[in-house]
Amino acid sequence: MPDVLRFPDIRPGQRFRTASRTVTVEEIKAFAAEYDPQPFHLDEAAAAGSVFGALVASGWHTAALAMRLFVDGGLPIAGGIIGRAIDELRWPVPVRPGDTLTGESEVLEVIPSASRPGTGRARVACRMFNQDGELAMSYIVTLVVRA
Amino acid sequence: MPDVLRFPDIRPGQRFRTASRTVTVEEIKAFAAEYDPQPFHLDEAAAAGSVFGALVASGWHTAALAMRLFVDGGLPIAGGIIGRAIDELRWPVPVRPGDTLTGESEVLEVIPSASRPGTGRARVACRMFNQDGELAMSYIVTLVVRA
Repeated sequence: MPDVLRFPDIRPGQRFRTASRTVTVEEIKAFAAEYDPQPFHLDEAAAAGSVFGALVASGWHTAALAMRLFVDGGLPIAGGIIGRAIDELRWPVPVRPGDTLTGESEVLEVIPSASRPGTGRARVACRMFNQDGELAMSYIVTLVVRA
Repeated sequence: MPDVLRFPDIRPGQRFRTASRTVTVEEIKAFAAEYDPQPFHLDEAAAAGSVFGALVASGWHTAALAMRLFVDGGLPIAGGIIGRAIDELRWPVPVRPGDTLTGESEVLEVIPSASRPGTGRARVACRMFNQDGELAMSYIVTLVVRA
């Protein structure tokens, strides 16, 4: 398989894996302070009394961390990872301080462009697992892929 | 309508609007450097030669900015905005430096819990518009709502 996939190289069933990243309490709070300042993402004591029972990362932080892992090498598309749509985004298990996340991607479907031969879209399932193998996040992205 | 909605207060058709926020080139690049380091989010010259034709915000940055606007007041749910799922996330028009974003939310559906009377879920359409009234992002979130 080539290092970076162009449209003709992409096939359903191809799978890739990212590096791993451990999420610190400092970055959970920093992201939350900027983008999702709710008590259960910012303060341990407040989080203990919340539905989560302890400090958890914003789901959008988990999504951003996943993107970083995929960009660094877990979805090797020529021209970059250009998502047109995300479907079925889920967070089955919260991300907590100290969790180590690893992503995988799996090509589900390849859709040739009607107007631009040789190019098209690919629907790719993306999943993030924690160190216990629990699914922390999943979604399906529709990517633009060039010739 | 009460200031903060509990489950019995929520009805399909309720709509809310966020404050507005102008997105700077500095924050576009800062978010990208941390979470989505692709050339079209980081560097004007590289972006000019990309499919976008100019620097654009990461779609995940737009999602994070939207969350901040909704948390600050555009989705007044008791106990906070706790999303279980996102469906149909789309970015029809890119966000560019200097764009001013404003969000709106609209309750689509209310689903009582079978196991915990008085609580449930709400499906809410969230939309972000730029200063020209163009739809920059939209999604449907399924929220947990307490009694």
